[in-house]
Amino acid sequence: MKPINIGICGLGTVGSGTVALLQKNREEIQKRSGHPIAITHIGARRDNPDCDVSGIRVSRDIFEVVRDPNVDILVELLGGIDTAKDVVLEAISLGKHVVTANKALIAIHGQELFDAAEAKGVRVVYEGSVAGGIPIIKVLREGLAANRILWLAGIINGTGNYILTEMRQGGRTFADVLAEAQALGYAEADPAFDVEGTDAAHKLTILASIAFGIPLQFDKIYTEGISHITQADVSFAEELGYRIKHLAIARRSEEGIELRVHPTLVPKKRLLANVNGVLNAVLVEGDAVGPTLYYGPGAGSLATASAVVADIMDLVRADNRHSGVPHLGYADSGYGLDIMPIEAVSTSNYLRITALDKVGVMAQVALVMSRHKINIEAIIQKEPADGEECVPLILLTHQIREAEINNAIAELEAMPEVVGSITRIRMEQLDG
Amino acid sequence: MKPINIGICGLGTVGSGTVALLQKNREEIQKRSGHPIAITHIGARRDNPDCDVSGIRVSRDIFEVVRDPNVDILVELLGGIDTAKDVVLEAISLGKHVVTANKALIAIHGQELFDAAEAKGVRVVYEGSVAGGIPIIKVLREGLAANRILWLAGIINGTGNYILTEMRQGGRTFADVLAEAQALGYAEADPAFDVEGTDAAHKLTILASIAFGIPLQFDKIYTEGISHITQADVSFAEELGYRIKHLAIARRSEEGIELRVHPTLVPKKRLLANVNGVLNAVLVEGDAVGPTLYYGPGAGSLATASAVVADIMDLVRADNRHSGVPHLGYADSGYGLDIMPIEAVSTSNYLRITALDKVGVMAQVALVMSRHKINIEAIIQKEPADGEECVPLILLTHQIREAEINNAIAELEAMPEVVGSITRIRMEQLDG
Repeated sequence: MKPINIGICGLGTVGSGTVALLQKNREEIQKRSGHPIAITHIGARRDNPDCDVSGIRVSRDIFEVVRDPNVDILVELLGGIDTAKDVVLEAISLGKHVVTANKALIAIHGQELFDAAEAKGVRVVYEGSVAGGIPIIKVLREGLAANRILWLAGIINGTGNYILTEMRQGGRTFADVLAEAQALGYAEADPAFDVEGTDAAHKLTILASIAFGIPLQFDKIYTEGISHITQADVSFAEELGYRIKHLAIARRSEEGIELRVHPTLVPKKRLLANVNGVLNAVLVEGDAVGPTLYYGPGAGSLATASAVVADIMDLVRADNRHSGVPHLGYADSGYGLDIMPIEAVSTSNYLRITALDKVGVMAQVALVMSRHKINIEAIIQKEPADGEECVPLILLTHQIREAEINNAIAELEAMPEVVGSITRIRMEQLDG
Repeated sequence: MKPINIGICGLGTVGSGTVALLQKNREEIQKRSGHPIAITHIGARRDNPDCDVSGIRVSRDIFEVVRDPNVDILVELLGGIDTAKDVVLEAISLGKHVVTANKALIAIHGQELFDAAEAKGVRVVYEGSVAGGIPIIKVLREGLAANRILWLAGIINGTGNYILTEMRQGGRTFADVLAEAQALGYAEADPAFDVEGTDAAHKLTILASIAFGIPLQFDKIYTEGISHITQADVSFAEELGYRIKHLAIARRSEEGIELRVHPTLVPKKRLLANVNGVLNAVLVEGDAVGPTLYYGPGAGSLATASAVVADIMDLVRADNRHSGVPHLGYADSGYGLDIMPIEAVSTSNYLRITALDKVGVMAQVALVMSRHKINIEAIIQKEPADGEECVPLILLTHQIREAEINNAIAELEAMPEVVGSITRIRMEQLDG
């Protein structure tokens, strides 16, 4: 039987994992997909000493792989956007199917790539772009296809989750854990991509589009990072029965679609609150199925390769016919649902106020909240530490519109008894 | 566009949910699948007052649905085996695709049905047969297809999990919770199917076949129920840092495949130990992806309908072409792996021994264990309750072959100081 020939561009973490996995599980993969699958040509600017490419043609110019007439399926694992886009578009124009794990590329240029692919009768598949080895794209696009998705909430950046887990379990500061994560190679030298939420926002763009049938619109996601979370917040959350997680949330409401990435207090007893370290998890609420959760390694060489090779196998099994599964899950153009500005979103909130230790401060704070019609659900007020003039006041509010809580916070921050700025962290009950 | 016509046999819990879901999400389903989907004909021996079938042809003879030339896809939701098998085989012989949620049918007659379907060029799909709305069949057969599956462990019977959860959280007895579950309609009047593990064994048969490429072989599964679990066991497990779950386990080892359903002590901190009530979850360890978990409602009208309708949509999307995904995941005949007899399986164990409160009993017990080369990991020995002559001794053992621990238990039970029979519950760390 003629093998299906794979060309791979990029030999970094995921590229070398893909090469290793196709070799390691060759027999299993052939039995499952019905065809032998061979790596014919690899394009990489430099060798990867961890990757055995003996017997495989390697080119320094990745476009030689794209243009190789022996390559049936092109696997783009370069990272970055510009060259990756050129590679994918050229492969499509040559009638080749494309497999990618590039979330930024799909989140920003996905529609253009899918349109080009449909025009040429080929597929661009991208399971590895979100949550590594967890097959969440397939689950949303196929497994839960009968549902109207109501909301989803995910821990989809492993580095951020590792930092928050270490802050809680080890009582350490954000800066300390981040420095360690960088030293261990978990976090990039420029950590903004992970800890400021850009990476999670790319992934949420893709998940929301499939869930709701809306266009990919990365620029409409509200994104807030975790660098301002302190050990005090972690402890107070714990005391109140919550954990702080960096969640990516998409929710359908009567006013439109909420798309937001921000630190979030989650009740301790929820499974999502117990997803620790570099692991990922996505909780999806469908109107028929109810809440379902998908958990596993969201990154890593072989874990992401598991998704990349599954995509290759889907293409091989479909044997060059269209699978009938639309690129973004909707055959029709989907819905014209608007993305809500963050100011229109309602959540409950955790507020940490640093106040001078004077009589009547809490009463004044309560008065401001009441003027803004914000109900207070819980309060923690502690004695000041020895020699301290200030005390922390912790409030949990009922659900309230963002615009209203922002006004209240501005008013509280203007009080002479309130020192510095107020920390506000949104809360989600995640109970359907 | 010509609609795809669905015939449904059976209008019980899942049948009525399927009718309701196809109506409720008609627009979403059409946008996602690219075709209108219409229910043309329903076969049911009686009406279901909870199900609106207005405008749909209803026959009392379900074979009229099967033979209706307007029916493109036959949905079998009868339950039971014999009539269901006749319905499915006749639908296949007439060239219709079949969707079923019937785990007993697939576990016992699946291969015959799949062979008949392949011969006619149609598909028999069965996502709803395992874990209700959780798309675990799709995940194993497609999403994790690049992996050599090492093991899987699932909570796949909601009634059993509900009973164990209530025993732990409410401090109640097995009999008490079971009676309540029956009154609430969660459990059948004859509860053996749920609590003795038959239902879980049907589902494990299917999962193991897809995971390892082995034939469906229900009769080779070791099955043990939960009716002997006492409140004392639940409390001692808790004290030792474990919870008791009724797990279905399939594991690949050098000696063959382990297939077993039994109560199991699981470390409290594992996600699987925190799956409560009627919910289901399956933990899968792939060699590339690592551990991944799939969680959600494992039963219920709309939740199971979510899987049934997703299967219908897969068929509609594939537009009468073969999807290329083999019925049991392997295009080739898979592996000739043997199923191990339970005597050859090794696990660690929890033992609860009721002993006379005499000096030296623990030493004698330890001597027996040592003669059988069984290492003891932890011991709990308590004072006797007021007026009691007996004390419970709790032992946790290291991993040991079943045959060996059985011999040790027989020897311990023969000791004059040991009263009655010894409770043994297997343990799993589930850490890869």
